[in-house]
This record gives sequence, structure tokens and C-alpha cells, in this order.
Amino acid sequence: MTDISSSPATDRPVVRLRPKAEARAIRHGFPWVYADELVTDRRTQKLASGAIATLEDAERRPLATVTVNANSKIIARVLDRDPEAVIDRAWLVARIARALDLRARLFEAPFYRLIHAEADGLPGVIIDRFGGAAVIQPNAAWSEAMIDDLAGALAEVTGVTTIVKNGSGRARGLEGLPEETVLMSGVLDGPIEVPMNGAIYMADLMGGQKTGLFYDQRPNHAFAARLAQGARVLDVFSHVGGFALACLANGAQSAVAVDASAAALDLAVRGAAAMGAGARFSTRQGDAFSTLEALASEGAQFDVVICDPPAFAPAKPALQAGLRAYERLARLAAPLVAPGGYLALCSCSHAADLVQFRAASSRGIGKGGRRSQLLHTGYAGPDHPMLPQLAESGYLKSLFFRLD
Amino acid sequence: MTDISSSPATDRPVVRLRPKAEARAIRHGFPWVYADELVTDRRTQKLASGAIATLEDAERRPLATVTVNANSKIIARVLDRDPEAVIDRAWLVARIARALDLRARLFEAPFYRLIHAEADGLPGVIIDRFGGAAVIQPNAAWSEAMIDDLAGALAEVTGVTTIVKNGSGRARGLEGLPEETVLMSGVLDGPIEVPMNGAIYMADLMGGQKTGLFYDQRPNHAFAARLAQGARVLDVFSHVGGFALACLANGAQSAVAVDASAAALDLAVRGAAAMGAGARFSTRQGDAFSTLEALASEGAQFDVVICDPPAFAPAKPALQAGLRAYERLARLAAPLVAPGGYLALCSCSHAADLVQFRAASSRGIGKGGRRSQLLHTGYAGPDHPMLPQLAESGYLKSLFFRLD
Repeated sequence: MTDISSSPATDRPVVRLRPKAEARAIRHGFPWVYADELVTDRRTQKLASGAIATLEDAERRPLATVTVNANSKIIARVLDRDPEAVIDRAWLVARIARALDLRARLFEAPFYRLIHAEADGLPGVIIDRFGGAAVIQPNAAWSEAMIDDLAGALAEVTGVTTIVKNGSGRARGLEGLPEETVLMSGVLDGPIEVPMNGAIYMADLMGGQKTGLFYDQRPNHAFAARLAQGARVLDVFSHVGGFALACLANGAQSAVAVDASAAALDLAVRGAAAMGAGARFSTRQGDAFSTLEALASEGAQFDVVICDPPAFAPAKPALQAGLRAYERLARLAAPLVAPGGYLALCSCSHAADLVQFRAASSRGIGKGGRRSQLLHTGYAGPDHPMLPQLAESGYLKSLFFRLD
Repeated sequence: MTDISSSPATDRPVVRLRPKAEARAIRHGFPWVYADELVTDRRTQKLASGAIATLEDAERRPLATVTVNANSKIIARVLDRDPEAVIDRAWLVARIARALDLRARLFEAPFYRLIHAEADGLPGVIIDRFGGAAVIQPNAAWSEAMIDDLAGALAEVTGVTTIVKNGSGRARGLEGLPEETVLMSGVLDGPIEVPMNGAIYMADLMGGQKTGLFYDQRPNHAFAARLAQGARVLDVFSHVGGFALACLANGAQSAVAVDASAAALDLAVRGAAAMGAGARFSTRQGDAFSTLEALASEGAQFDVVICDPPAFAPAKPALQAGLRAYERLARLAAPLVAPGGYLALCSCSHAADLVQFRAASSRGIGKGGRRSQLLHTGYAGPDHPMLPQLAESGYLKSLFFRLD
């Protein structure tokens, strides 16, 4: 692995913005330089992926310390506003400590997203914490190159002993990084119990989707649970029981989880059992759309229905088809809601903004023969901060409707 | 007062959409007809303000039961999708009962917005509940005409004994209604104690702004309180102590409330005293902008600063000036935040949307010399539902930043 971190700031590479590129954006906190904004001479093209460099404006004034990846559309990412910052383990420790301070203030137990990439000052890096264990997603080349320092700093700041490197996911491909998931330190014998909103979730840190659990929906799980006391709950695209188990923890009469993955539903069942709610919980494995149609033909009714699908519109070319899928989902779900009951519709599509997603959801509810009030719009929880300059990328949106 | 409610649906007035008007919008749940969409013949112009009528499309097909006010830009408001609905006390009872069912599910104690106008099926009507008391704002002519039935239905469904009619505010002027605030039933001797987020607020139902308390910020008060344990808090535009008292209830070290109104601050002091937090609470009466400048010159620092100003951009013509005021507020507040502390910026401006308000806030923070993460975007609480068709009017936005 290339050592990118040890050179002092003074004799490391320099990269330079093109004359017409926007230095002001960088000065005001925008964290990225696109490939067409940088002078890509032979020297820059030869830099190792993830190399640490000093970014200058076209007039050779130093702007920031950046990491460079000539394979990526985002050719440089700001690591530090200080053009002379030394990016080493001590620097990583300071960034992680700052992120930990926020989470310790927000959460009673150490289960949260600890590092949310750019907004936490570590571009392209995701770290989820599960008590004494953590999963790192090093989705930018610099963090792959510094993975040992990163894991060391993480252990030093938080005291976690089990560390998984999860190298799956689309983002790594864009950076030219290989797929691999490895246990870097500690032991893992089976899923970890995660307490959240009064429920117990089972997170499979080595085999799960993303990092094994979706912390981003925590406040939306909590809102659904407020509505679910004494209710019959249907949780569609349930994964390991996200909404269903939170509702059961808050006194739902029953919950049915629908998912295509038998492995995810098995973890949900084990979570419900660990909560002592196994008798109120059941699952239906299969395609969500077909299952909704089957439930309708059975005449099933629920007081609270939640649909939390994978991204139907992850990127712009999929937008129209994605919006149609959201509308169809709302149309199929609405008739299953009992009169005066609640329907939660979620989107984690970057390409579909709030206004588009709300319109598609509302159309679907209408075509499903129902009228609605919109009670609440929820986003990802505060352990998923954003840079204001990238706030448009707030991908997660959860809409809570009450139906007539 | 004109009796608008007693005529059976069959011999009441009929109003008709113009040929080119959008009947589809009404069929899909849009609740308003604008003046230029309705045939305004002499008969329609002669209708008493607030008259109940049957709305037909241009082909004379009945669409809905509406209330008509020829003095208003919104000339007709849908009361019921059923064109033959009888709008009487029993109808009001059913609407209020449906709204109560939601609030009873959401809140442990009976302190909330009970009726949020169109979204709760009572166009132009606001009702806030304070335990055994309630304040009605009848902001549309039909509800002024039916105020006795409305108060009766409210008492019947909820058991409240004290009812205030608050006839102040801009909306009534647009409907051609006079300003008057009267005690319709029961007794009021001084402000009412309102428990919310663990704090105690003092609500002056006869003399206060709006209905005496702002319930809409409840979830945002709660989020600020999560950040405020052990913190020094500054609450600018505090009114009766909204953010400050919630933070004190969650263990803030101290809270300073700033407001131009001595009467509001007096109620805040009384709330803090009732909570036993009087020793940790202080106030500064005066202009918010000058007070922020004064605090800066004193070298004051706070761990959590909240600015919740009145609407700087209530309508489109005030948009640019309003955005500049939000930016200036952020610029003056940011330097008062200690390193690693939190800044909450709120807008209740209809005209400034989320993207514009966020950009103004972020610019102001930058000009105040700080960088930020955006942790959370909050809206009005779920006792302020919206019709999806009017969701753009989600006026309240609270942004929570962490500063470097």
C-alpha cells in the first residue's frame, strides 16, 4: 500500500485550480474539486490514488490540504482548510474525537453513526458504531491507503475493540477501489444486539447490507412508534425489522414485516424474540409489491403501514421510473390502511427531491382511493450531519400521512 | 348574525366553476377556489359572507359542499367532499372528534393545537387547547357565523369549559372580519400553566400573541434541549421562554432569554420559577439585533444559541429584505457560539422556502467567521398537519447547526 501520509506539508505535491475555477466555493466551505476544475498535468495524473496534496488557486495562493484521486470525477476533496495540515494519526484522532463529542451528547448508548463523511471532516469515510464494535466504510482512496491509522485512531478515541472494514458499495467503484469486507481486529461471533428506541435489533456486521443496520431512520422509527400504540402494524421493506420492532417496543398490538431477504427477516425475528415480543411479530418473505397485492386480496387491514424501500431513483436517469415506483407503492399500500390510520412512505433516493417524492406519494394515495393529511416530514437523524453546502444531498425523506 | 347553517342541502345556494377552471384539483383534494375560477353572478355576489353552498363544475355536476366569501381572494373553501353534506353542530362534532383522536395518540397531556384549519377539515379555523381551556381563531367568515355551534361542539367533544375567541391577526382582515378577543365561556384568572417537554410555560390566553403560546416549535424545543445538557443557552426572540425553558428542563447550566416584550419575558420568568429553575434563568429586554451586538462586545459565549424571530418575509414582496435579515441575524449570532457549540436558526416566513432560508443562514454563519455542520431540519409538530396539496405552505423551519 502506498504511504501517502508521512511527507511533511512542505515537500508534498501541489495541485492547482484552473484559472476559471471557483476558488471562492472552496474558501466558503465547499469540499470538492471536480476534474474539470483542476490543472491535470502529467505530474498530477501520476499521483497515487488518495495522495495528500496542497491545493492552490490559479494565482498560486494556497487554499487547503486535499486528497487527490485522478480516477474520480471528484478529483480532489478538502481534508483541512489549513494548507499546511499534516494528515496523520493525530489528525485523525482529533477529527474522530470531535465527532464523538456530538454523538455522546445526542445518545445515551454508544450505537450510532460516528463519522458521516465530509460533514464530519473525513471525506468519503463512514463509520458506524455498535457498542464495542465498529464498521468502517473507506469509500475514498485516501482512507483506504490510511486504513490502519484510521482503525488505530478509532480504537484510541472510542475504545472499540472489534473493527470491520466494509469495502462493498457503489461509492468505492467510482473511486476505483476493490470490493472486500474484512475483520481488522477483535472477534465477531454472530450478530450484535443493538438497543434503539426501546427495541433490540440484530446487526450482522460482516454479512449485512451497508454496515449491518440503518441508523439513519432512528427518529422516523420513533415517530412511527408514537402512532403505533395498540396498533396493527405492517412494515414493508422491513430489513431487520426497523420500523416493526420500534412499534412493538412502544406497545403495538402486532407487527408484520415484509422483506425479500430471508436472512434479514431471520434477524428481525431474533430481535423480536430478544425483546420478548416474538408472539406479536410475524414475517412474510417475498416481493413487496406482490405481497401488498396479496394482502389486499386477503382483505387485510392495518392501523399503521410503513414502506421503506431501497432507492428507486438512486441517480437522475432513474428519476421518472423511480417516481412511478413510489407512486405505485403508495397506491398499493393506501387501501391496506384502516380508516383514520397512518401511512409512512420513505425514500432514500438522492435523485428524487422532497417535492417530487411528496407529489408521487400523494398521487399514489389518491389513486389508492384515499385522502390524506401530512403529519410529519422526517430526515436522517442528527448522527448523519450534512455540510450546508451539500445539503441538497439529504437523501432520506420519510413522510407520515393520516388517511381518511 | 346571519344564520348560514340551517338550510338543508337541497335548497341552499349553488355556485359554479367557470368553464376553464380546474375541477380536477377539487376532486383531488385541493381545498380552495380562487375568485377568478368561479362564476360570480349577482346571486353569488349577494351571498352572505360565509354562506354554505353546493359547488358544481361547469357542466353542473355537484363537486363539494363549500363556504363562499365574495370578499375574499379565496372565494370558496371546501367544507366537505359530499355535495349534500349538512354543515351543522353534529358535523362540527365529527370533525373535532377526528382531530382529537390524533392528538390523544400523540400527546400525553391535553396541550396542543387541536384544529389546524384546512388539514383538519375546518377551513380557516385554528383551535389551541390548554387543558380545560381552549382558544378559537375563527379566521374564515363561515366559522365566525357559526361560532356558537363551534364552541358548543368543542366543549362537547373535549370537555373544555373555558373558551376564548381570539379575533386578532392578519387572516381575518383578508376575510373582512373585525378584530375582537372575547371570553365566550368559563373563567380565566391569569395565565395558564402549560407543561411541555418537561418545562412549564405560562400562557396568557386573552392577551398573548396568537393564542398565547406557540405549540408549533415543540419538537424543535425538544431537539435543542437534547443539545443543552450542562450548556450555557441564549434564546433570542424568546417570547415566553420557548427554547430557554425546555433547555433548562433538560439540565442546561443557564439560560438567557432576549425579547422586545417585557410582558412576554415576565411570563418566561414566572415559568422558570414554577419549574424551580429561576436561579438559572435571566432575561434581557430589548431589540434582538442590538442585544446580540452588545453581548458580542461583552465577550459573551454560549454553548447553544437559538434565534426564533418573527416572520421577516411573511409574503413575497418582503422576500429579499427578509433573507437579508435572516443572514444578518446568523452573522451576529454565530460569533457568540463557543467552539464546537450549537446554533439553531428558525424561520416562520411563508415566503422564504427551506432552500433560501438555509442558504441565507449558511451565508450569515460564514460571514460571522464560522464553518458549520447541519445536524437537523425541523418543522412544525404533528399537531400542525398539512394538506399534501398545500404542503408548500409549511411555514416553520428550524435549522440546527454545529459550529467549528
